[in-house]
Amino acid sequence: MRTDMYELTMLRAALADGTAERRCRFEVFTRRLPSWRRYGVLAGTGRFLEQLAAFRFSSAELGFLLERGIVDEPTAAYLENYRFNGTISGLAEGEVYFPGTPLLSVVGTFAEAVVLETLVLSVLNFDSAVAAAASRMTSAAGTRPCLDMGARRTHEDAALAAARAAVVGGFTGTSNLAAGALWEIPTIGTAAHAFTLLHDNEEQAFASQVAAFGPGTTLLVDTYDIPLGVRRAIEVAGSELGAVRIDSGDLGILAREVRAQLDAAGATETKITVTSDLDEYAIASLSSAPVDSFGVGTRLVTGSGAPTCSMVYKLAAREAADGSMVPVAKASAGKPSVGGFKRLFREVDDQGRASADLVAIGDEASVASFVPSQPARDLTVTYVRDGEIDESHLGAGGLRRAAEHHRSARDELPLTALRLSSGEPALPVRTATL
Amino acid sequence: MRTDMYELTMLRAALADGTAERRCRFEVFTRRLPSWRRYGVLAGTGRFLEQLAAFRFSSAELGFLLERGIVDEPTAAYLENYRFNGTISGLAEGEVYFPGTPLLSVVGTFAEAVVLETLVLSVLNFDSAVAAAASRMTSAAGTRPCLDMGARRTHEDAALAAARAAVVGGFTGTSNLAAGALWEIPTIGTAAHAFTLLHDNEEQAFASQVAAFGPGTTLLVDTYDIPLGVRRAIEVAGSELGAVRIDSGDLGILAREVRAQLDAAGATETKITVTSDLDEYAIASLSSAPVDSFGVGTRLVTGSGAPTCSMVYKLAAREAADGSMVPVAKASAGKPSVGGFKRLFREVDDQGRASADLVAIGDEASVASFVPSQPARDLTVTYVRDGEIDESHLGAGGLRRAAEHHRSARDELPLTALRLSSGEPALPVRTATL
Repeated sequence: MRTDMYELTMLRAALADGTAERRCRFEVFTRRLPSWRRYGVLAGTGRFLEQLAAFRFSSAELGFLLERGIVDEPTAAYLENYRFNGTISGLAEGEVYFPGTPLLSVVGTFAEAVVLETLVLSVLNFDSAVAAAASRMTSAAGTRPCLDMGARRTHEDAALAAARAAVVGGFTGTSNLAAGALWEIPTIGTAAHAFTLLHDNEEQAFASQVAAFGPGTTLLVDTYDIPLGVRRAIEVAGSELGAVRIDSGDLGILAREVRAQLDAAGATETKITVTSDLDEYAIASLSSAPVDSFGVGTRLVTGSGAPTCSMVYKLAAREAADGSMVPVAKASAGKPSVGGFKRLFREVDDQGRASADLVAIGDEASVASFVPSQPARDLTVTYVRDGEIDESHLGAGGLRRAAEHHRSARDELPLTALRLSSGEPALPVRTATL
Repeated sequence: MRTDMYELTMLRAALADGTAERRCRFEVFTRRLPSWRRYGVLAGTGRFLEQLAAFRFSSAELGFLLERGIVDEPTAAYLENYRFNGTISGLAEGEVYFPGTPLLSVVGTFAEAVVLETLVLSVLNFDSAVAAAASRMTSAAGTRPCLDMGARRTHEDAALAAARAAVVGGFTGTSNLAAGALWEIPTIGTAAHAFTLLHDNEEQAFASQVAAFGPGTTLLVDTYDIPLGVRRAIEVAGSELGAVRIDSGDLGILAREVRAQLDAAGATETKITVTSDLDEYAIASLSSAPVDSFGVGTRLVTGSGAPTCSMVYKLAAREAADGSMVPVAKASAGKPSVGGFKRLFREVDDQGRASADLVAIGDEASVASFVPSQPARDLTVTYVRDGEIDESHLGAGGLRRAAEHHRSARDELPLTALRLSSGEPALPVRTATL
């Protein structure tokens, strides 16, 4: 039911006129990146597959749709037995992408493919937005860990997907317990200002936290006065204090002052973590500051200025009355699509550095047998073949693979891809019409 | 489990040191509005209450938390029997708000109140962002309906909440079937470009749609060529054609051309609906165009530039060792909070026009008995009293009330509140310290 009504009305009319069984190729692509981004990151395919397996309409839901007059009896009968038997392929989860290239394709009957539009796009548009933001943040952070603390800044279920997408983009932990449990992501968190305020004074709050979690815990030192907070933290926890957290003020200056104070007190191993309204630019500006980890909230889960990815789901080819597949495309002003089967390759130079994306476009057979004329990585992964989901993309294992894939795909890009300033996409896209 | 880990670690330490049972007042507020907004819209309280009733930790979840060492046995035992027995009050859903004022308060033991932080903030931050965007759009649209078509542009569950929050802000329909079913929101949708492309030509697609849904349907006319599409639409459906939808190009110019073409063909009752990347500014720019309804997607569900509301959940007062309630506040640089009990009033002039918000701050008794010296509307609604949820805020009935409340609250504001240009909040906020 997480479906737009027009998918079911199209299905209903197509079932009635006999076109519902026509074989179709739908494609996911985006026409643009945010102006300040050099690459996109595809994320959410594993999560989409987890939900595809459960994509069903219950009898109560079908009753609602019939009662509202949205579907008729034949449509309800079709949906009652719905199972996707087609093929889904596209970029690996974590792959970097550029505008105008095919990201995912769904091949099957019109009926089975059209009803997936909302689910495909909701998942990929949100997860990819977060992963792209996460990737720039982890790139700016270098070897220092980035941790998701954004659950409170987005919808309570979107928060889980955001924690997962952040891991695709290189984050290594989340504050969100449900996300931690679902995808085996390490969870992090110790205390908020409320815990300090609950107690009669800061010393008592710190002492309580150390009593519960040992001196290796992270103490939040900015509720009242930071130098005083740091002094009390060391008094209570000793020089084995695990970390202090700073959540306000000029983080670069404060981190240096706190580092000096910790070192002077012998707490040379105590880490500093910072958490106030960070984004990739703030993280980059802290590159020379003695910060050991970054907790990122709002800007991560809202895609750091681009909370969605403008991905669309368009029909690119369909069966004709004679059984052949014909390319189809819309001509809408400013929003055209390109018909035909497609396959995406990434050309690499002899140092293994990516130099361009190549889209082969043609009929199904010629695209399947196409071999690029120069060294190129075939970017196509088959997620679902004739209705069978490749389970290696699901769950914690799929997420680990996606994070690894992203790291290697990002490492393959030219160095300009990692610039935070506005500019053109990091790779040009070429087309080979077969 | 849609909870940040630090809430449970704070709970654990507080249970161990005896402060968990201290009575506390937590407050939700925001320090700022987006620079281009004159008012905020509180939304999501009804949806939060729907989830509060189900806020539980299963034994599998507690097992996970114990195994990971996040909670100890006493904390698990507390959570196993968790039930919120406190009091929650604040602005009515749909109320307009301004920075620095208390939006919602949660009064109960530290233990029962602290664990709700993530759920409260996730729901209110997301829903209020969408409602505020929706309100500006419906204000710009005047009497013409605005319809949510944003499900494909945000997380699949966030899409449901967005559809609901849009109704709070004045929208009258959604494309999302699940949202329609959950909160009795009228659902809308007919066909995408894929339906036209599926068929051998545009005439066959239109004929199929009219055969299934009658001439009163909405035909999408911009797949190939709009004037040709409109001519075919009338040829197929006749002058009783319900509506045409335009999804690309310069909507103002096209709407005028299509209106003239429809009128010349005698289809004077056929409506025009437009749907391409609309926001409040695009809608305002179409104020003189012959458009009958607006379908809004991306910019609605992403809060039109502000996908979250920066709301925070802070401890404002807590029980001391002697049983009295003491105000508490943090002093963090740039992010201070204000301690004490608070109550919010909206002062109105003798024309019934709002002129200022008044925050009374003091101890619990003096705030409860405070009477403003000039005419003012008491903005406080009690949602939960001693654990009992007021069910009138739930479900479809609660949503209807919220939408009505928003309309009257917006109507009460000075006219400058409705300006789309950047500027100061529409009302000043005054403080009365009791």
